[in-house]
Amino acid sequence: MTKKINEQEAAAMLRQADHILLLAHQYPDGDTLGSNFALCQALQTMGKTVRVLCGDPIPERYDYMYEQVSQPDFEPAFICAVDVADAKLLGPALQQEYGHRVDLCIDHHGTNTGYAAYTCVDESCAAAAMVVFRLVELLGVALTPGIAQCLFTGIATDTGCFKYANAGALAQRMAATCIDQGIPYEMINRVNFDIKSRARIELERLALEQMTFSHGGRLAIMVITNDMVQKSGAGENDMEGLPPIPRQIEGVWVGVTLRQKKDGNYKISVRTGTHADAAKICALLGGGGHQRAAGCAVDGSLEEARTAIVRAVETAIPRITTG
Amino acid sequence: MTKKINEQEAAAMLRQADHILLLAHQYPDGDTLGSNFALCQALQTMGKTVRVLCGDPIPERYDYMYEQVSQPDFEPAFICAVDVADAKLLGPALQQEYGHRVDLCIDHHGTNTGYAAYTCVDESCAAAAMVVFRLVELLGVALTPGIAQCLFTGIATDTGCFKYANAGALAQRMAATCIDQGIPYEMINRVNFDIKSRARIELERLALEQMTFSHGGRLAIMVITNDMVQKSGAGENDMEGLPPIPRQIEGVWVGVTLRQKKDGNYKISVRTGTHADAAKICALLGGGGHQRAAGCAVDGSLEEARTAIVRAVETAIPRITTG
Repeated sequence: MTKKINEQEAAAMLRQADHILLLAHQYPDGDTLGSNFALCQALQTMGKTVRVLCGDPIPERYDYMYEQVSQPDFEPAFICAVDVADAKLLGPALQQEYGHRVDLCIDHHGTNTGYAAYTCVDESCAAAAMVVFRLVELLGVALTPGIAQCLFTGIATDTGCFKYANAGALAQRMAATCIDQGIPYEMINRVNFDIKSRARIELERLALEQMTFSHGGRLAIMVITNDMVQKSGAGENDMEGLPPIPRQIEGVWVGVTLRQKKDGNYKISVRTGTHADAAKICALLGGGGHQRAAGCAVDGSLEEARTAIVRAVETAIPRITTG
Repeated sequence: MTKKINEQEAAAMLRQADHILLLAHQYPDGDTLGSNFALCQALQTMGKTVRVLCGDPIPERYDYMYEQVSQPDFEPAFICAVDVADAKLLGPALQQEYGHRVDLCIDHHGTNTGYAAYTCVDESCAAAAMVVFRLVELLGVALTPGIAQCLFTGIATDTGCFKYANAGALAQRMAATCIDQGIPYEMINRVNFDIKSRARIELERLALEQMTFSHGGRLAIMVITNDMVQKSGAGENDMEGLPPIPRQIEGVWVGVTLRQKKDGNYKISVRTGTHADAAKICALLGGGGHQRAAGCAVDGSLEEARTAIVRAVETAIPRITTG
């Protein structure tokens, strides 16, 4: 069993530690990278030996977050996972090497499995970067542009650039404090929210062509097959930000994206508005996540995956059938 | 010649005035409506007789901003335009009736033509709602949820939901102060930035199919013809937010949208990144706007409009040809 600790205790623990290995989750996003590289820089400022590891390659557009941050090689004495709700999310290699001996986990997911010896979770934070923002303060490290741009990236990406329900006043005030440091927020927003490759545009067009609506337009299902990905020329970096699309359509309560994996099976992303709980739907298929955004996986054909998720939606949200 | 005044002087003027008619610009957007209805409520709180007029019908999604705000009929004694950079932008009817006798203009456009007797412009503000935010403070009116949701809408819509270069720390702090009032910011963001009708999605798909790239991918041109609008079933409310699309594509410096008007001629929207000045391009065709977003119109066929804008882009940004 993990011991739950608050931010003061987590800061005290980090103050004691050295030769710290920070761990990000696989398929890295702006928040896991932003919160890890911000904490890494803060701890390095304190004179500690620290680096960040991620089980997957880091997409190029995040270069700005770590190209100025030294990543020394050393034997870790303290292992800290940031924004990693489950040891499985470290990816197979890092899970096997470090999953059983994580000293501290800093997170904002209510679904955190408690795999670390100590866990500091603040569910009220929209982003792990908001927890780290407070830790940096508690550690007495002054914000630098380098730290601030990482924190801003985490907050901005996990709130959909301040669009989602979780983008409260605190998220915006923390972002404003980061902007005060003179960070290139326009570039950060542009690379994270604006720019799409021509291949990505083509993939969206193909996916929109095939989108299906049912349950009086309240359920929208978008499918991304390997064939469509190939036809569009899209690479791994072009795949982020697809799951919100179906729910953005008027009248849709539940937006589902079925994405074919390399092995042919399907990864399912669910997005919901105020009418439905995405985590509840995905839990029925062994997945999890947040109230408005969750995921799961189904082994089988497209039609099997489609049938399974439709059944889960109908079970979790009976009202979707009647409206 | 208009007399330029600062916010203190504008507040003093409004404090003296009564029977105030506020004017929004035609094709109303979130900022002109948000800033007008926020100021209207603040002045009504002070016991004044005030209403807002707009030359065009207000899209349904903005209902929440004014459904609680009384709009009495009266003979105006003081006329104040908010977020209206040019008397022409009032639309023909309001321009004819009030354009020559606007007492005060409150605005954030550097291009304001100075048509009002007094003009209070703060170009450093991303939204007219930010100027009004300060005026409400100067008038000594406490923020209410009703005022705050209008101000938030103006700030959020004119900064692309805090995504653009103009979304600085002040914009985010003002937004946070509005959120503190308990406004439904999730709903506001959803109706303004998220929700698209199925017809709109179809229109985007058709437009993407026809998008053309030139000048080494640095110029992207999207065309929206009346025929495409009809085929998709899109209505007037589905047409907002199309102009940013071409510039969102990787490598694009200048994103152009040619939209056919009812009379067959073309309205042109130009969006640019850091490489190019949109206002400079549009000025060559008699239009104007901001550095990153501007517009103009060309009478003629699609090919004539396309030729004219390509020539204007090449003239304003010679480097677009060579890269």
